[in-house]
Order: sequence, then C-alpha cells, then structure tokens
Amino acid sequence: MSVSPELRERARAVLERCRGAGVKLALAEASTGGLISASLTEVPGASAVVERALVPYSNESKEQLLGVSPSLFLAHGAVSAEVAQAMAEGLLARAPVELVLAETGIAGPGGGTPAKPVGLVFLALARRGAASVVLERHVFPGDRGSVRQSAALRGMELILDQLGETP
Amino acid sequence: MSVSPELRERARAVLERCRGAGVKLALAEASTGGLISASLTEVPGASAVVERALVPYSNESKEQLLGVSPSLFLAHGAVSAEVAQAMAEGLLARAPVELVLAETGIAGPGGGTPAKPVGLVFLALARRGAASVVLERHVFPGDRGSVRQSAALRGMELILDQLGETP
Repeated sequence: MSVSPELRERARAVLERCRGAGVKLALAEASTGGLISASLTEVPGASAVVERALVPYSNESKEQLLGVSPSLFLAHGAVSAEVAQAMAEGLLARAPVELVLAETGIAGPGGGTPAKPVGLVFLALARRGAASVVLERHVFPGDRGSVRQSAALRGMELILDQLGETP
Repeated sequence: MSVSPELRERARAVLERCRGAGVKLALAEASTGGLISASLTEVPGASAVVERALVPYSNESKEQLLGVSPSLFLAHGAVSAEVAQAMAEGLLARAPVELVLAETGIAGPGGGTPAKPVGLVFLALARRGAASVVLERHVFPGDRGSVRQSAALRGMELILDQLGETP
C-alpha cells in the first residue's frame, strides 16, 4: 500500500458511491498534488470512475489546462474561493464526467500570511446540471503532510455528501 | 506522511537533483495514477520544480490533454512503448519545462493478457533539446500497490539517472 489507510478507506467508499450512482469523476488538485487521485486509483477498478486528474501546480498550468483567468490570480490569489470555483467549472467544461472536485491550498511550511495562513484550503465541487458549485473554506492544522491528508479526506467526503443526496 | 517512506525518500532526491540542475518537471501518469506527483509534492518546496502533473486515465483524456493519436491505441494499445513515447512528447510540447516523465501500465488485478501481463509498465523520459526519448519496459511483480510503487520508484530513478549525466 502506498497511501495511508485512512485515504484508502475513504477512496474505496467514493468509488463505490460513484459506481452506484453511475457517476464519472475528474479532479483538479493543487496543494494536494495528486494525493486524491493516487488514493482513488490505488483501488482496483478505479478506471470505471476516475476519468482524469490534473495537478495544475503552476498558475500557467491552471490557465492552460482549466481556463482559469489570470485576472482571478491578480484579484484574489491562486488560493481563493474564486480560483477553486473557476478550476471546477473549467474542468467540468472540458472533461466528459458528471462530477468534478477542485482543490487549491497552502500546504506549508512556507507561503502562509496572516490573511492566508498555512493550512488554508478551498474545495469546489461541481456537478453537471447543478445550479451552483459547492464551495468550502478550511484551515487545517498540522504540518504539510497533515494539511494535505486532511484536504484529501475532506475532498472525498464532499463527493460522498453530494452523492448521498442522490435520490 | 501520506505516501510510503521509500517514495518520499526518492522524491526528496529527485527534487534536490532537479533544483541543482535548474530543471522544471512535468508528469503524465496513467497506472501510477498521481503517485509520483503526490510523492514529489509532499516535499516542501516542490513547487519550485513540479510545474504540472496529469493523470490521463481514459484514452480520451490522453488524446485531449497530450495529443496522443487514437491510431496509436488501435495499433498498439494504451499500454505500449508507442503510447508512452507519445505521452512524453505531447507533454513536452505543451508544458514549459525541461524534463517530462510519462508512464502507462497495467497495475492489475484485472486487465492482464499473456502478451501484456499485470505489472507491465512503460516509462518514457523526454528532455528538451535531446535527440530521443528514453524508453523502458518493465514487468513488476506483486499486487496493484506493489506494481504502482515499483513503477513510481523506477520513474523517479530515471529522472535521477538522466540528471546525473548532466555535466
């Protein structure tokens, strides 16, 4: 096993729920850096659910891969609700899936400011046909590994919450 | 820590070597599913080296994100030296980096055939300005987790080998 047991357990639940709902999934992970994708794809049969994942680490890649406008970085910064939402919307516009999860955050140890501390993470969930994007702001405690793990776990929980509401 | 100690140790070495060589890196991971990216980005300061990573899990995403020709899937299959090379070349053409690593494989437990067994992994390394792409074929033993971990470790070792040759 290459990822932690908690991540793997959550990933199993996400894949089962997505398969049950007939939902394909795409991901855009910034500070989690592929941890959600690595966790999901560690489970056999993940290819029936995961269509693609992107780790747009640079701002240029967020623009090129997801169509995030440079003006958003200028106005709000790469770690912002606005950029998380644009990442999710850009991915949903490009990938043939029903559900996308986008994440942007400051995993640390550097990069924090009083207004945007280490541990700040924005998650955005967009569903095809839904009226709006689900947005969450967190400040997760702990070191880089803990922040990334918490963000990945909460991101997968968001997917579970969303699909739990399916009739 | 969210990824295994071996992955993390190798990731540290890769980041150090890339920083020393002034090299930025992009990844395209299929069967490793983001494990290399997750390992690299777990190390503080990874953003100075990792520009982007893609997990083009579906064939459609390999076409859309990397320009892999559908004729290659038909002629050779998604897990082939030809597709690994096309993924690497496509990524190098799109990302503003000096070095790209591409991976495609069969992590199992399903999907194996006598000609293409579980554990089969192709790695392709392309460097800007280099005359050719470095290609490797492996058949890694063990279960899905072991195959993915072995592929990720060897992929990172390829980067180290490549940069070790830098004058």
